[in-house]
Amino acid sequence: MSTTLELTPVTTAPSGACCAPLVREAADAETARELAHLFKALADPARVQLVSIIAAHDGGEACVCDLTAPIGLSQPTVSHHLKILVEAGILTRTQRGKWAYYALMPGALTRLATSLTDAAA
Amino acid sequence: MSTTLELTPVTTAPSGACCAPLVREAADAETARELAHLFKALADPARVQLVSIIAAHDGGEACVCDLTAPIGLSQPTVSHHLKILVEAGILTRTQRGKWAYYALMPGALTRLATSLTDAAA
Repeated sequence: MSTTLELTPVTTAPSGACCAPLVREAADAETARELAHLFKALADPARVQLVSIIAAHDGGEACVCDLTAPIGLSQPTVSHHLKILVEAGILTRTQRGKWAYYALMPGALTRLATSLTDAAA
Repeated sequence: MSTTLELTPVTTAPSGACCAPLVREAADAETARELAHLFKALADPARVQLVSIIAAHDGGEACVCDLTAPIGLSQPTVSHHLKILVEAGILTRTQRGKWAYYALMPGALTRLATSLTDAAA
């Protein structure tokens, strides 16, 4: 005597709502790592303020001597935060005479903003 | 006998290049703290990928069951990252039946992007 084994079709999405299709490309692992590195550089209130103060200055550039008083931190602490922002590629640093001048790296913040608005669109 | 005291105008910027004037308002301490908190939530490659994958899904919403395989992490780890994104106000979480669904919080990423492009403008 033989029996027939009923095979039920297996779907990967048993619930209709689950597993909606991707409608566009998500960030790959390498891009995600780069973006996360930029976000980390901005993940500190003092660094957000520094970027904001530099951007608010005439010409988009500020001397380190402009930056200590507004955020109420010592010059070594401010220099430490500025170094992180320069290393992340968010700021540029130019030495002129005795002072270092900091400016926004062209394109860096726009790239981050685009990555966010693409995600939000 | 009286002398006339010559008053020399005092400038706060003795060097021409130093201490450029502010041309617009910089972020205040409270705003900087809020923005830094959002940046911190995105300062991890897995969380950047999660936001990106959710945004790339049809309807801008994804089930937690859609999110584990693409980034190659366990469900508890993915849930941990999702919790951080929900607590930061970047994602919303809706329970429907046995699954939790995640979507972008309207306006959260646009606000961050605006803060960046304002700075870059």
